[in-house]
Amino acid sequence: MTLRVNRERLGQNLEALSQIGKSPRGGINRALGSEAEREARRWLCGYWKTHLHKTAAPDAAANLWVVRPGNACKAKIAFGSHHDTVTEGGKFDGALGVLLATEILETLEETHTPTRHPFALVSFTGEEPNPFHVSTLGSKVLSGRLHRADLEHLENEQTHAPFSETLAALGGDLQKIDEALLSPADVCAFLECHIEQGRRLLDKNLPLAAVGKITGIYREDITVHGEANHAGTTVMRDRHDALLAACALNLAFERALRAVDRDDVTGTVGQLLVFPNSVNIIPGAVVLTLEIRTCDEAILETLREAVTRAAAAIEAQRGVQIERQVNLNQAPAPMSPVLQDALLQAFSDLGQPPCTLTSMAGHDAANVARRTRAGMLFVRSNGKSHCAGEDASLDDIELAGNAMLQALLRLDQELE
Amino acid sequence: MTLRVNRERLGQNLEALSQIGKSPRGGINRALGSEAEREARRWLCGYWKTHLHKTAAPDAAANLWVVRPGNACKAKIAFGSHHDTVTEGGKFDGALGVLLATEILETLEETHTPTRHPFALVSFTGEEPNPFHVSTLGSKVLSGRLHRADLEHLENEQTHAPFSETLAALGGDLQKIDEALLSPADVCAFLECHIEQGRRLLDKNLPLAAVGKITGIYREDITVHGEANHAGTTVMRDRHDALLAACALNLAFERALRAVDRDDVTGTVGQLLVFPNSVNIIPGAVVLTLEIRTCDEAILETLREAVTRAAAAIEAQRGVQIERQVNLNQAPAPMSPVLQDALLQAFSDLGQPPCTLTSMAGHDAANVARRTRAGMLFVRSNGKSHCAGEDASLDDIELAGNAMLQALLRLDQELE
Repeated sequence: MTLRVNRERLGQNLEALSQIGKSPRGGINRALGSEAEREARRWLCGYWKTHLHKTAAPDAAANLWVVRPGNACKAKIAFGSHHDTVTEGGKFDGALGVLLATEILETLEETHTPTRHPFALVSFTGEEPNPFHVSTLGSKVLSGRLHRADLEHLENEQTHAPFSETLAALGGDLQKIDEALLSPADVCAFLECHIEQGRRLLDKNLPLAAVGKITGIYREDITVHGEANHAGTTVMRDRHDALLAACALNLAFERALRAVDRDDVTGTVGQLLVFPNSVNIIPGAVVLTLEIRTCDEAILETLREAVTRAAAAIEAQRGVQIERQVNLNQAPAPMSPVLQDALLQAFSDLGQPPCTLTSMAGHDAANVARRTRAGMLFVRSNGKSHCAGEDASLDDIELAGNAMLQALLRLDQELE
Repeated sequence: MTLRVNRERLGQNLEALSQIGKSPRGGINRALGSEAEREARRWLCGYWKTHLHKTAAPDAAANLWVVRPGNACKAKIAFGSHHDTVTEGGKFDGALGVLLATEILETLEETHTPTRHPFALVSFTGEEPNPFHVSTLGSKVLSGRLHRADLEHLENEQTHAPFSETLAALGGDLQKIDEALLSPADVCAFLECHIEQGRRLLDKNLPLAAVGKITGIYREDITVHGEANHAGTTVMRDRHDALLAACALNLAFERALRAVDRDDVTGTVGQLLVFPNSVNIIPGAVVLTLEIRTCDEAILETLREAVTRAAAAIEAQRGVQIERQVNLNQAPAPMSPVLQDALLQAFSDLGQPPCTLTSMAGHDAANVARRTRAGMLFVRSNGKSHCAGEDASLDDIELAGNAMLQALLRLDQELE
């Protein structure tokens, strides 16, 4: 008989965890190190103790691990996500992956199903933006992208608590953090289930997708230097309005993105500040960030060139200077073909059509992919993300749980 | 023999007053109520005492008045400007009008020149933006635009000192402020000399202009409501980016202004804030102010309609809502033809061509014009304003002093 996850239990657990950090406005607030985040850890550890009879062990980065032993192989097959949230976030982002991993372990336990590899559930530390200004913190440590030297001077921007103290309170240990590096000998595969966050599955009318790649992210800080002047006495032709120049640049960037016209390419100016920002002074300077997300190096280059051409034209037309500085150029993370195949086979076994998408958001799996085989399973969401209105159906979630369970059991057979 | 002002003395006084409130960065800081502003008042009163043998009398709004009696008429002919400055301002904005008025009284005194009307020098209180958030404060009180009820709850945004205390320390009296209303029977004419602040005289290669009107100022608060969403997972066609919509609106507004193409019509978006203003979130809302300056009601209407059309098109194209709220619609202030004629006649007598300009900045004279005849004389500047780099030549200033002296003596003869 094919194993199936318990839909009701999964729904109840999602509901229970969503009460922790719930705000009067309806969103969930479980930022790294907050009281609510610690309460979520206590709730999870209590649940694992009671229902899986296992004690969670934090690593040096306070990532929580629960290991169910295997009977043949040494290397673990790991799966999970994160339990922290953005400000006023939804109940699925992160929590779904952790609770689905919990449900899989519980299903294996209650059916006494043996596995060859140890199966390891993981809930990562600080995946979301947080008061320490480092996101995907736990998985960055495991992948060697963050070291003790990067972390020892961090403090909470609100409380000024040192990161080392927060980490210690969560069961981590900054002194040992450089030893937490993940090795393929220890973890031979990692699978993360997450809501899609966008509308692509919704628009395709499909419940599940395997992730082919996690997008590269490129960011520039751009400063437009114009000339602040009196908004009354400076005639239009004598102006060097930095805001109008920035507007023209943003619209040119948008035109270049629309010319590319691909669902796996996005670009955004999300942050923009005007100086001196006074009603009666022509803007003298504008500082903005420009972001491009794509897995395709050629498209990134095309878009960068479009920005370069637009900037040069705007400088010439408007007598401004546009200064650009790359502040992030994160390569795309391809997911392991072995994990993609296992997922697509599971979809087929469940009567679902194959679907592979690029993840346009960053995830812990992108870091883990630097050290071992990694894969991701996307579940259809309502397209709302990082807000209280985020939603996904229990039907889709049940399907995702069964697909993940099948994929993991297949990997357990196939991997050495 | 025609009376002439003393160029050297004027230059020395401009230099002396410019030292008060001078910052290490080279600009001048004499905001209303600051120590430097009070020092400037003490310096002026001391100068008037020593050189004009007159004691300045503050009115209830702490505007400083020095009156030289006339021998035939009761109503005063007044002239002056203001001694406060913007943050890091220049040495001419305001101070020039006060010191040129001082020079004119001193010239009349030392030549024992009698006038029919009393000649009254005035230096206004708080013309520039200040920590109490009311500009042209002193002249607004005189014109009945500001009352005790508007002022009694004001406090300094930095020190939280009540406005009443600051005013009392400057010699004013909030209790009596509603009695300070200026009447044409008391002041039959007011003339203000000011640097032009723009580049129009510079571009015309002319030193002086009479002001025909002081511009109307129209301001809207505009909120663009879009939809905040994930910058990675939201494909381009599903976006309702409030910042891109605001950029399109600002550029459409600029195109409408360029189509009007007049030196006495300006429009500016000087203030713009993005929400939530995060690098990886599509802007959900933008709040901006849109300002139009013109004396022409039809042009104002044309521009407002252009904004309305552009807003409707952007709403339809981008799926955003654009909410507009008028927050200022200040009518233009025409200057008295009598004062304009007196100035143009003086230009002619000094061998200067006639020139009449619209003032694109607000001035105390715009308030005074609500109660009595008002006029303004512009002196060519280098086009830089509200900054340390503001400049004007002593040749032009001397010419302005002589034109103003001639115009005032003519008004003294002509007015009853």
